[in-house]
Amino acid sequence: MTDHATDPDEIVRPLLRTRQVREFTDEPVDRAALDALADVGRWSGSSRNNQPWRFIVITEVETIRRLADTGMPMTRALQTASAAIAITIPEQPGWKLSHAYDEGRTAERILVAASLLDLGAGIVWLSGDGREAAGRILALPEDRFVRTIIALGHPTDRARRPKSEPGEARLPREETVLSERWPD
Amino acid sequence: MTDHATDPDEIVRPLLRTRQVREFTDEPVDRAALDALADVGRWSGSSRNNQPWRFIVITEVETIRRLADTGMPMTRALQTASAAIAITIPEQPGWKLSHAYDEGRTAERILVAASLLDLGAGIVWLSGDGREAAGRILALPEDRFVRTIIALGHPTDRARRPKSEPGEARLPREETVLSERWPD
Repeated sequence: MTDHATDPDEIVRPLLRTRQVREFTDEPVDRAALDALADVGRWSGSSRNNQPWRFIVITEVETIRRLADTGMPMTRALQTASAAIAITIPEQPGWKLSHAYDEGRTAERILVAASLLDLGAGIVWLSGDGREAAGRILALPEDRFVRTIIALGHPTDRARRPKSEPGEARLPREETVLSERWPD
Repeated sequence: MTDHATDPDEIVRPLLRTRQVREFTDEPVDRAALDALADVGRWSGSSRNNQPWRFIVITEVETIRRLADTGMPMTRALQTASAAIAITIPEQPGWKLSHAYDEGRTAERILVAASLLDLGAGIVWLSGDGREAAGRILALPEDRFVRTIIALGHPTDRARRPKSEPGEARLPREETVLSERWPD
């Protein structure tokens, strides 16, 4: 093996490169890629393996645009997405934080998978009225809601370009990563 | 490119293979790998890029074992871990769900990164008293708490073996992945 293949920074680079994409071309996403993304979501870990999620894979452009209309500008990525995955979660008092955590886990894994597949993905987080409107569009039963819709597609050239200088989109490492315990 | 390299199922396989590991050998984790894992966490996405997390990278075995003692059997992975990353989060009313979601996102990204580095990782979720005890051990200030500690190390042979038959650890695909909208 080369140094390249054993340098941890190189190995994890695909994860560092995974970014939110919010603008897509009109090229459709292959069905095989969508199936793979849904499987990645399905195999994510969850608290006590309770798998709260049911994923809805959406390719009907009319549905995706109606979902975009529920909460602009937060839903902007759905205006151009050619596919989407809605993560639906049951209403269970006492599980709210745990479900939000698990929902973040599966959303992130799908985001990483999309990046590996050279697709763009953006997390759309619905709140309040938007959440209810999206639930109606997706015909969800009363005991289930949708908070995350992952917009999917092929990024436009503009969306592929970094939005900030290298290293500037995050707080500096010395501020974020601490050693052994909280400093005095 | 070969078919192998363009088949979506093959490309996302490292993500499907990422599993919780809860039992480790006493071989230490390389510092470069720990740095890479902390960077992966640091570069995760968060709501409005608010980056609520401060990561504490722990390699002192005594500290890790004391953390294990705060909540057995849920903290079992920390009994043998040779390193750990604690994800600390600020106490912010109104942000609880959002922070839990973002915490799940970064925890999952670190888990995937550990798997790519051929390390084992297990999410330890602390609750109640355990969370307070861990906060004291890590000398956290009053406005910050720790709910997730990621146990890290080299998996034992036993921990590497799948715990269930292929495909049996999750609900069937037809039950979890729906098409276009909730079925009638």
